Amino acid sequence: MTTAPWPQRPLFNPGPVSLAPSVRETLAWPEIGHRDPDFLSLLGTIRARLPLVYEPLLGATHEAAVFAGSGATAVDAIVLDAAREGGDTAVVVGGPYGSRMAQTLAAVGYPVYEIGFRPGEPLTDVVRSGLRPGTHRLAIVHHDTSTATLNDLSGTAALCAAEGLDLVVDAVSSFAGEDLTVPSGVRTWWATCSNKALEAPPGLAICLRPREIPEAAPPVRAPITLDLGKHVSHQTAGDLAFTLPTQVAAGLSAALDDLQAEGGWPKRNLRYRRRSEQLRERLAALGLWPVLDGVEPASALTMARLPEGHTFASLSAHLAQRGLRAYAAQGEYAGSCFRISTMGAITAEDLDRLADALEESVG
Amino acid sequence: MTTAPWPQRPLFNPGPVSLAPSVRETLAWPEIGHRDPDFLSLLGTIRARLPLVYEPLLGATHEAAVFAGSGATAVDAIVLDAAREGGDTAVVVGGPYGSRMAQTLAAVGYPVYEIGFRPGEPLTDVVRSGLRPGTHRLAIVHHDTSTATLNDLSGTAALCAAEGLDLVVDAVSSFAGEDLTVPSGVRTWWATCSNKALEAPPGLAICLRPREIPEAAPPVRAPITLDLGKHVSHQTAGDLAFTLPTQVAAGLSAALDDLQAEGGWPKRNLRYRRRSEQLRERLAALGLWPVLDGVEPASALTMARLPEGHTFASLSAHLAQRGLRAYAAQGEYAGSCFRISTMGAITAEDLDRLADALEESVG
Repeated sequence: MTTAPWPQRPLFNPGPVSLAPSVRETLAWPEIGHRDPDFLSLLGTIRARLPLVYEPLLGATHEAAVFAGSGATAVDAIVLDAAREGGDTAVVVGGPYGSRMAQTLAAVGYPVYEIGFRPGEPLTDVVRSGLRPGTHRLAIVHHDTSTATLNDLSGTAALCAAEGLDLVVDAVSSFAGEDLTVPSGVRTWWATCSNKALEAPPGLAICLRPREIPEAAPPVRAPITLDLGKHVSHQTAGDLAFTLPTQVAAGLSAALDDLQAEGGWPKRNLRYRRRSEQLRERLAALGLWPVLDGVEPASALTMARLPEGHTFASLSAHLAQRGLRAYAAQGEYAGSCFRISTMGAITAEDLDRLADALEESVG
Repeated sequence: MTTAPWPQRPLFNPGPVSLAPSVRETLAWPEIGHRDPDFLSLLGTIRARLPLVYEPLLGATHEAAVFAGSGATAVDAIVLDAAREGGDTAVVVGGPYGSRMAQTLAAVGYPVYEIGFRPGEPLTDVVRSGLRPGTHRLAIVHHDTSTATLNDLSGTAALCAAEGLDLVVDAVSSFAGEDLTVPSGVRTWWATCSNKALEAPPGLAICLRPREIPEAAPPVRAPITLDLGKHVSHQTAGDLAFTLPTQVAAGLSAALDDLQAEGGWPKRNLRYRRRSEQLRERLAALGLWPVLDGVEPASALTMARLPEGHTFASLSAHLAQRGLRAYAAQGEYAGSCFRISTMGAITAEDLDRLADALEESVG
């Protein structure tokens, strides 16, 4: 028996998340080949269940593909797959995750431009005034973990409906944990992964795309492992294009059982918000929250100020002595803030322990 | 406790492999964030150990990157990273895996052409006569699992040395299990993954590239998750660019311990060859092996003829009744052959059981 070089700690980072025992136990299932009929049957069930997480939004209209990768892999695959149909992509950029989508499109030569905004600005107005002629689609990050905020998905989707644009959504940190409702009549692409609000182990990229794809569109400018059409056509035929992490897929299957048992995304969202409210009350009392005004905070992630006199390193050292970890903030917030996620098997007691430790660091 | 929907069976497919208990147990390690200092420390150790698997070949000259994906992901990343330096890439195509490399390069607009060959042809002569002016590198599959053969790596590498070409190697199914010796003086890129001869769970793409990369080379035409330079620069700095399957990385760490304890790739190669010889003797007695003449068989994979009167489906049904699985052949061999791998925790008894079952199917 090999011993883990780290102790069990509650994971306050926004994925990989702390696992429920029901999910962790699947990792000990017998090994299986990725083309074994038993495994392909499990994968088929997973694929069928994913669009149903947002029934009736995606159930009848979308096809899922599941393959080896991270959330970023899934985002790469959907922006390229959508861009294949031609025209410009306008990417809404409020932080590093938007920039990534634009970088990928530009790297392979697809026409793309950015519409920048600051958290708190009225996003729909910013997008409307930033749109250029020749634009065929909008790409947006839903839950932007770099600011722990939700961008206005329903508003931008309504704008897309009015303007006849497709919508490509980085839902990596929101799928299964937030409301994804958009008006009908907008063609949508969605990217997520196994290890965020789906609460499974990391290792699987997940994409949902419209069932109706124009056959005349040219081949995608993507390396073969990021060709979403290839993944979908293999998986629709009951096969798969490339090896995927079979143990992680077993975990995802168990995690989908748990999601259903919990009552679907609305109940999961409620759990996340309750945990976050519990935490934010304590943080507010310490003067560490909120950081940003006029934003919609994510249900499962909180950006807080570093306590007076603390760097992220010194706060981390303080928490480590108590068996706890915090997660660094990104970009312009890295020097002044940190982040706490309530995704995954995080208990009210875990959050109390963390809040107590933060209180000591302020005191 | 969730129950696995499949029994424990020996995996005779060329990865994902049957795991040693020491590796399987790491999957039950406590969950950890991918940016947790303890995890980054484990990842740093893995990265440092990978080039040393082929000491002195790669130890001083190559930098490893490990990220979410399959072997195909790793191959995509190395062919694009090498092509970034300019000039044409000649891809040696003896089956579907060579074609994939050419497809990826063509999809993003890098100049590429194919040099086709049939198994058994003198590869170095075929390549020499197929090379065109303006070629900067050769890309080759080492262990071609579609024919269960080894392509002449040392011969083509010597040709590259003579012609001043770089060499890009799909070593997905050979790294850690075969001799990778190439002459010094050739710049080489290598792709593999966690779940083949490294004998860890599936989910990690592994790339090795030269430490010395010209700074003046233009940005790579790759989606961000396949930008090998980005992975290397983040990981060299002790960070990582994107989430990776943390549980699989723990398994890879334990698998590297096991590889070292076994005596490195030469001893592992010996084990694979002994197991394959045991199997091939039985297959030859049944008239099912060899299939191809004048080829170098892979150490850990055997392509055999389907027994008289059997399709792959009927043979699979016969084996399934005995708790066993075979792996289908590919392409032109799919209708007449099947494949058996000896990678991973496969015992002599497992192979006897399989050979007995095959004997019954012939009987």
